[in-house]
Amino acid sequence: MLKRLASELRNFPGVTRKNPIGPLVEKFADHPENVIASFGEDAAVIEVGDEGLVFAADGIWDKLMRADPFWAGYCSVLVNTHDIAAMGGTPLAMVSICSTSNEGICNRLVEGINTGMDKLNVPMVGGHTNPDCEYNAIDVAIMGTIDLDHVIYSTTANPGDDIVVGIDLEGRVHPSFQYNYDTTTMKDKEILLKQLGSMEKLAQQNLVTAGKDISNPGMVGTAGMMIETCNQGAEIDINSIPKPKNIDMIDWIKMYPGMGFVVTTPPEKTEKAIEVFEKSNLTSKKIGKVRDHRKLIIKDRDKKETIFNFEKDKITGISCRKPKKQHR
Amino acid sequence: MLKRLASELRNFPGVTRKNPIGPLVEKFADHPENVIASFGEDAAVIEVGDEGLVFAADGIWDKLMRADPFWAGYCSVLVNTHDIAAMGGTPLAMVSICSTSNEGICNRLVEGINTGMDKLNVPMVGGHTNPDCEYNAIDVAIMGTIDLDHVIYSTTANPGDDIVVGIDLEGRVHPSFQYNYDTTTMKDKEILLKQLGSMEKLAQQNLVTAGKDISNPGMVGTAGMMIETCNQGAEIDINSIPKPKNIDMIDWIKMYPGMGFVVTTPPEKTEKAIEVFEKSNLTSKKIGKVRDHRKLIIKDRDKKETIFNFEKDKITGISCRKPKKQHR
Repeated sequence: MLKRLASELRNFPGVTRKNPIGPLVEKFADHPENVIASFGEDAAVIEVGDEGLVFAADGIWDKLMRADPFWAGYCSVLVNTHDIAAMGGTPLAMVSICSTSNEGICNRLVEGINTGMDKLNVPMVGGHTNPDCEYNAIDVAIMGTIDLDHVIYSTTANPGDDIVVGIDLEGRVHPSFQYNYDTTTMKDKEILLKQLGSMEKLAQQNLVTAGKDISNPGMVGTAGMMIETCNQGAEIDINSIPKPKNIDMIDWIKMYPGMGFVVTTPPEKTEKAIEVFEKSNLTSKKIGKVRDHRKLIIKDRDKKETIFNFEKDKITGISCRKPKKQHR
Repeated sequence: MLKRLASELRNFPGVTRKNPIGPLVEKFADHPENVIASFGEDAAVIEVGDEGLVFAADGIWDKLMRADPFWAGYCSVLVNTHDIAAMGGTPLAMVSICSTSNEGICNRLVEGINTGMDKLNVPMVGGHTNPDCEYNAIDVAIMGTIDLDHVIYSTTANPGDDIVVGIDLEGRVHPSFQYNYDTTTMKDKEILLKQLGSMEKLAQQNLVTAGKDISNPGMVGTAGMMIETCNQGAEIDINSIPKPKNIDMIDWIKMYPGMGFVVTTPPEKTEKAIEVFEKSNLTSKKIGKVRDHRKLIIKDRDKKETIFNFEKDKITGISCRKPKKQHR
């Protein structure tokens, strides 16, 4: 079981498709002083006057677009708001690039975007259309505000920290896409905003050292990406992974959940962090520890299996770039 | 000649591909109070604390991407910085979504982006990669800062205003794409930044009532888009259109120039506006007048031809939305 889990994750496209990011990022030049953090983070952090801004973009996997344009449009809003929320920020506005020559697809795409906007309370303020395109695609960018004294970075976990997840388990495998566990379309706006706001609360109370939203690589894959960019390793106990009862672990481990975050906490703050997640309508558990051995290991009681050895393997391959300022 | 020009423009894909924008935009809900202006503008204008922000996105036409990935990458930076400059703003940072499974294409794309970043002085701070995609695409979003007391909107031209262009005529038809007149790749950064900065100067000196960067619809097509969203009409004198000597008017009128803006000015300020453009290394001319008849007309001495009657025709079909605040 453990061997199979490790192998499934190692070869899961949701994880392996992150491989080309590192080399791409290295090609972009260094940044001016006002860019506090950028690659390796869910959103770039920029200082403008007295304001802190966060800026991110996400393209929707073309598999998902082919499967269900409404869901692709909806997800384009969901993943972008998550990028801002994961940093402890507040979404401000989005812009979109809609590429399709098919009016039916376009309408369903826009309906999905509209539904997402309503649920997650972020306006779409502009963008671009490619109405004569040979492909169908939706790309969205988002900006938000952030308190620069309380940012949750992805690159700042310390060895010895606990790894904690906060995740919504009440949902369904999305009928259009087997790797998506939808927990948001059936819930009220108030609950969703409370869940999204959990990270800002953790930031304001200085409870976490690092954090990220759980994206296509799934819960363990996302923890792996974070640990890799932190230049650390991790041990994750598969028996402590929160999971919906009716889904197999092999499937669950590869799923993109509608609402979920992974954070690292100093052990003395773990209980408080879990409390913040639970009060925000999320299920929260400690699932492992940050280690200094540069390996992503899963364990089942006394058995252990290495998924990645970052001395030679990579997920994104982004080398660790610590934020230029850290106020905490 | 005049009839042919009108017909070429009316049916030019650079213009007609803007048609689906209006219905798309109408589907997006209304915006919160801090969004000062959005659809119909080159960039959305947002108020955050004491700061003014501008936010835009541009996808690159797939025709151009197929023709030359380096040039597509370069243009993704060029058009985005233009969107911010056209409002009178200053670019701050970009994010990109690179979609391609072809490493060669990806490398040329990123080289193009990098060259653009160097030339135009804007960092790329994040984004997303789709490395397992069935298509090749580059989408970029940009944010910038702006002085909210001196914004150049697209929707605020008045009947009786002069229509003035500022454009760089020193360049070449791009070898990869017949509709692109490249004036930037062969010039130094200092000249390009001076040219881009012309709009901020016009804004600070309160010389213009409206303005836009010249994009895929070409000089007259862009003036038409602006006039349409202003709920006005225009008469443009084709004999006053600045044009490189070695290019036919029929071709020129459909070209996307590397660096160009169209603005409207109260007649008593026209001379000063032209001076600002000329001092910024651009050729500047008055090319027409804003009218209240809702038609886009071109004229050649005493002959006139209507390209669009906005009572029944459309370019974008975006209904006029005046900015919520206008400080000038």
